[in-house]
Amino acid sequence: MKTLLIGAGISAVLALLVAPVVAAAPAVVTPAWKQVAPGVWKTTVGTAENFTLLGAAGIQPQVEALQAMPPAAFPLDQNEIEGRLLNGKTALRFPLALDEDVYGLGVDFKSMRRTGSTFLLHVDHWSGQPGRTHAPVPLYISTKGYGVLIDSARYLKVNVGVSVRLAARDKPPIVDRTTGGRKWSSMPRSDSVEALVPSGGVDVYVFAGPTAMDAIRRYNLYCGGGALPPKWGLGFLTRTPTAYTAEQALAEVAQFRQQGFPLDMIGLEPGWQDQAYPCSFEWDKTRFPDPAGFLAQLEKLHIRANLWFNPYVSPNAPLYAKLLPFAGSHLVWNGIVPDYTMPAARKIFSDHLQQKIVDLDPAAVGGFKIDEVDGGDGYLWADVATFPSGRDAEQLRQTYGVLLQKTIFDLYHRENRRTLGQVRGTNAGASALPFVIYNDNYDFNEYITAVGNTAFAGVLWSPEVRSGEAEDMVRRTQAVCFSPLALFNGWMTATKLWTHPTATGPIRDAIMLRQRLLPYWYTTFAQYHYEGTPVIRPLPLLPGFGAKSQPEAGKLDATANPYALGRVVEVTDEYMIGDALLVAPIAPGAKSRTVVLPAGKWFDFYTGKFAGENQTIEVAPPLAQIPLYVKDGGLVPLTGERQWSPGPGESVPLEVRHYGEKPGTLALYDDDGETFAYEKGEYSWTQLRAARDGQGVWQGSITPTPAGKPWHYSGVTWTFMTQP
Amino acid sequence: MKTLLIGAGISAVLALLVAPVVAAAPAVVTPAWKQVAPGVWKTTVGTAENFTLLGAAGIQPQVEALQAMPPAAFPLDQNEIEGRLLNGKTALRFPLALDEDVYGLGVDFKSMRRTGSTFLLHVDHWSGQPGRTHAPVPLYISTKGYGVLIDSARYLKVNVGVSVRLAARDKPPIVDRTTGGRKWSSMPRSDSVEALVPSGGVDVYVFAGPTAMDAIRRYNLYCGGGALPPKWGLGFLTRTPTAYTAEQALAEVAQFRQQGFPLDMIGLEPGWQDQAYPCSFEWDKTRFPDPAGFLAQLEKLHIRANLWFNPYVSPNAPLYAKLLPFAGSHLVWNGIVPDYTMPAARKIFSDHLQQKIVDLDPAAVGGFKIDEVDGGDGYLWADVATFPSGRDAEQLRQTYGVLLQKTIFDLYHRENRRTLGQVRGTNAGASALPFVIYNDNYDFNEYITAVGNTAFAGVLWSPEVRSGEAEDMVRRTQAVCFSPLALFNGWMTATKLWTHPTATGPIRDAIMLRQRLLPYWYTTFAQYHYEGTPVIRPLPLLPGFGAKSQPEAGKLDATANPYALGRVVEVTDEYMIGDALLVAPIAPGAKSRTVVLPAGKWFDFYTGKFAGENQTIEVAPPLAQIPLYVKDGGLVPLTGERQWSPGPGESVPLEVRHYGEKPGTLALYDDDGETFAYEKGEYSWTQLRAARDGQGVWQGSITPTPAGKPWHYSGVTWTFMTQP
Repeated sequence: MKTLLIGAGISAVLALLVAPVVAAAPAVVTPAWKQVAPGVWKTTVGTAENFTLLGAAGIQPQVEALQAMPPAAFPLDQNEIEGRLLNGKTALRFPLALDEDVYGLGVDFKSMRRTGSTFLLHVDHWSGQPGRTHAPVPLYISTKGYGVLIDSARYLKVNVGVSVRLAARDKPPIVDRTTGGRKWSSMPRSDSVEALVPSGGVDVYVFAGPTAMDAIRRYNLYCGGGALPPKWGLGFLTRTPTAYTAEQALAEVAQFRQQGFPLDMIGLEPGWQDQAYPCSFEWDKTRFPDPAGFLAQLEKLHIRANLWFNPYVSPNAPLYAKLLPFAGSHLVWNGIVPDYTMPAARKIFSDHLQQKIVDLDPAAVGGFKIDEVDGGDGYLWADVATFPSGRDAEQLRQTYGVLLQKTIFDLYHRENRRTLGQVRGTNAGASALPFVIYNDNYDFNEYITAVGNTAFAGVLWSPEVRSGEAEDMVRRTQAVCFSPLALFNGWMTATKLWTHPTATGPIRDAIMLRQRLLPYWYTTFAQYHYEGTPVIRPLPLLPGFGAKSQPEAGKLDATANPYALGRVVEVTDEYMIGDALLVAPIAPGAKSRTVVLPAGKWFDFYTGKFAGENQTIEVAPPLAQIPLYVKDGGLVPLTGERQWSPGPGESVPLEVRHYGEKPGTLALYDDDGETFAYEKGEYSWTQLRAARDGQGVWQGSITPTPAGKPWHYSGVTWTFMTQP
Repeated sequence: MKTLLIGAGISAVLALLVAPVVAAAPAVVTPAWKQVAPGVWKTTVGTAENFTLLGAAGIQPQVEALQAMPPAAFPLDQNEIEGRLLNGKTALRFPLALDEDVYGLGVDFKSMRRTGSTFLLHVDHWSGQPGRTHAPVPLYISTKGYGVLIDSARYLKVNVGVSVRLAARDKPPIVDRTTGGRKWSSMPRSDSVEALVPSGGVDVYVFAGPTAMDAIRRYNLYCGGGALPPKWGLGFLTRTPTAYTAEQALAEVAQFRQQGFPLDMIGLEPGWQDQAYPCSFEWDKTRFPDPAGFLAQLEKLHIRANLWFNPYVSPNAPLYAKLLPFAGSHLVWNGIVPDYTMPAARKIFSDHLQQKIVDLDPAAVGGFKIDEVDGGDGYLWADVATFPSGRDAEQLRQTYGVLLQKTIFDLYHRENRRTLGQVRGTNAGASALPFVIYNDNYDFNEYITAVGNTAFAGVLWSPEVRSGEAEDMVRRTQAVCFSPLALFNGWMTATKLWTHPTATGPIRDAIMLRQRLLPYWYTTFAQYHYEGTPVIRPLPLLPGFGAKSQPEAGKLDATANPYALGRVVEVTDEYMIGDALLVAPIAPGAKSRTVVLPAGKWFDFYTGKFAGENQTIEVAPPLAQIPLYVKDGGLVPLTGERQWSPGPGESVPLEVRHYGEKPGTLALYDDDGETFAYEKGEYSWTQLRAARDGQGVWQGSITPTPAGKPWHYSGVTWTFMTQP
């Protein structure tokens, strides 16, 4: 099949050159699928490119974990999947049932459900253009319980349930608009997801379910399993103002300690370099005269530095001459854009970071913040840019963030130290790369929607707190503390977390609760890594919830709504973290909010009281609390209050809270929290169980961790939060 | 040169198929230019496609008019223009001086100056995405006095003054952002306009000046000269509610007559058809039982019908079977999308319109409204759609509106009757096609900016009045009466122009002034047709005004403006119409507005009083007046009050107003106002002149029109508006 297509491709291209208009309809291909891992199938339509998203990410499928999943058949009717080669481009068609919705296609900030829209998947800052996002992952997840990945490092156009085909078997009814009233639809529903890939071929993957969650799990596991951060990466990060000196940075840490705020990481902004925008990747000798000494002090304080850069190299930097042979034809902020699709270029950059920064104190340099690999178009290299590898500007744009994440991850892997970083542009294949996306946006609701959407993209995303009035700072801090990376970004504000006296207590409470929940977070990330289960679990992923986004009819208005478009009611402002916790962040200024409690009973995290069951409730939490609910039988492991995460050999107390009426179980994960020893089996899953005894009294039990396996808890206490 | 490139193209494509990554840098080509008309040069980079924008429009260059323009040398350094073939795409580079700005690249609604941005030129409804517009004409006009057209029916990516090349001779200064303060620029200025054309070659045109206005004139003349509407097309158009019957439509006309409102055209919305969305193109027998009789009544009332359609053919329509062989693979609103790049398909459609509609009463069917040929993506055919001609969905999308305009124009040309229509999507080459763009937008300021931007695109655009409170309706009516097409769009409102008693008088005044200015409008359109000079002349086209858009420094804000972007102050809310009139539409709700008066003295249209000179004034006009100024020495010809435009043999009185202190001259155009006899020389330019006599008394004089040439004025009166 593939050989046949190559032939067809060449003929088509030659015909195009000789006589550009070809009247013959392009041949339809029904692709042949090959199972490449349990429940994962691959096909190639046309001649696939040798540079793909998964290739750029260097994925290493977790075959054993995939094998442990239930066996599954190919989840679609293969005869309904079509490929076409069109004048040098490739068209794909997948079936979409009328009662089916899909999610994914990148981290959107406005909505989750993708049905009824078109997307141009394109790495970009948040522009409001559908498909242009920091993470335009060409993966979609169906409510029918499967996933499809188009593995192309191109700008992809995707239509979901719109643009009905003439050849469709069941077409929407024809209604006269003048007399048909609401029966007329401005966007007749199509039976397809269709995509245009601007290259002569493409690899496509299908991930089986049986549930949507299972399809995501298979995707994440195929990409290497989700990222497992070091324990300190689940603590709190503060970023200093851009021109801070070493002394000021240390004073900032001291302030956190004095205020009783936990802190594990400090972010150094552009000013750590002697030049930035374009960057030198050299310490600034006036602000950081003794980088090694500074890092040693951080290490003593149990703090890891996170160093900002954007990847555009200044002509004044020593690194410039080495990377110039790999430079693209266009500059960004007057710096060269190295062609990091080329391993030799990546090695030069990685060696520089290692020698000049990481190796000064590997225990203190926790990682990097990779800025401005996203967009917009006016900042980054033009689409006409050329690169020494011969790859297109478009291919570089779609993968630059991934290539840099992989470069840094590999550096730390060689050091046998885990890292956790930030990145502003990423794409498919990045599940295993320990980086969290962020951006310049500051809209609270969009932040929360984005956090939820990461589940469909195999990535992590964090809102930010920057500045604001007291209540604003509290509500934002609570939200970031219930996101994958808890951070304050003070790069250009004079505001501190303790600026507002009325906010200081609630902010401390939020960060401390984050710190206390470390065992819960760490196990949730371990589920991400070993089982592929996303850390953040939006409502459409919960059983029976996918079908709840229902279109509402729209009202005709000649100007505001000339096509009488309906809208879809979605719940995008709450999500589960891990197996037990439902988080409903409350926006600054909101006195109360609506919380949708999915099927099953839910209990208030703070009091253990019954909150509701399969219903919508209105809650008005005090300033110091973010609405948090635990599902019936949920076990929530916490540790005690502390100001930084435990070190590799350190043991901490464990409190296990049980909520609700049902018995509960939890496999609590542990390892050394810092190195890659877990890859060699140095980890443990310890079974916790809460159940009533013969007398009806709640009892907690724990299956001892096998000897020799990591277990860093110095005792277990049980709290049964819900009293009968 | 061209042969060499074809060879290179084939090699590159073959190499791509065999080994997609090619390390050799793409060869740079310095294109060779051929003068194809006076002051117009063409080149082909790579292998141009046989389907282009100008080809779709079927342009017929006005060679004689071009020859009458001053001779001009190639306006750019040819060595600075580059082409590259990149993996099946074509990159273009044109020089851009640091003190140069460009305009154009389609009808934008937000700004005029294009420097410092990137655009994806794509026919679309107004989405706010740069380059996606109803008229994404790939033409730019430089303040250095030349124009460049990329004649490709593809989605083009264009960078204007952003993305600096590594190879640039003079690169922007390198500034450290941390310490550089405002010297640091977030968007370093590039020395280029660069474009990516997603095909293996492209035709490019350069239009000489010496001024920006001259470059536009050459473009319009090369495209056949601007459209010349019939006289009745410069009157007023009202569109009826969608389900109106013939009786209701006639009653609407009667209302206009009773109210004393001029009216020349009535628009019939979807309900004239027995099915719409998708369309039948058949009269609805219940609402229009006797179409010919209805049209005959309109004709008696001096009214032309304008019939709405969108081009997607219902399976229930008799036309369907004929067009099905030409249908694309995807439907729009359940109707087929005929491949109108194919002449046979156009003929079927044209014949149908002619037989079923136009020929019922050619004197009463004035034209059509071509709706929904613009977008958005979710409504129209997917980019994966295929068409019987073998052309791509993208090529159809970029030209569909132009192909339909051309089809209808040709129909009327064969009938030897002029038409004026509306269209919602167009592109390059459309200057000569008598259609005015509109859309669903209703933002007053965006409307006015769009009207101005049409000058850089060779198209016409009109705002709309639909409904609103009294003052809102008045201000909007005034604005549409000073746009190319004066219309009320009542397709889905119960509001009429006479609904608000306090608004009725001022609305009547606005429409009557439009009607009285017919001689001025008609001559202005004749300048567009014969000289290529745009009807609407925004301030950047006035001598010395182009350089006035100055960037202001931006203020750093971590969230709202993290790159400290500056902004450019432009004057987008006023424009000249023709040689003499400056219009400054005043927005609903505004008590006053600022008016920028360009160099030279300006006089109030209503009073003749001096208003200012090269200065900014604040004006607070009464409700019944739109701010209008006449340049020094300006002659404004008007006719008397009447309720419809003069018929072909009809003569009307002429009043010529002179404004200011300087003598004035005007060549007043005339022809039969209805047919294409002007193509055979049946037209006249009559010289009017106002000057002081020996005693210092203003006198008007007129050079008699040559015998046998059209002249439809029954006497001339002179009014000298500015008293000494």
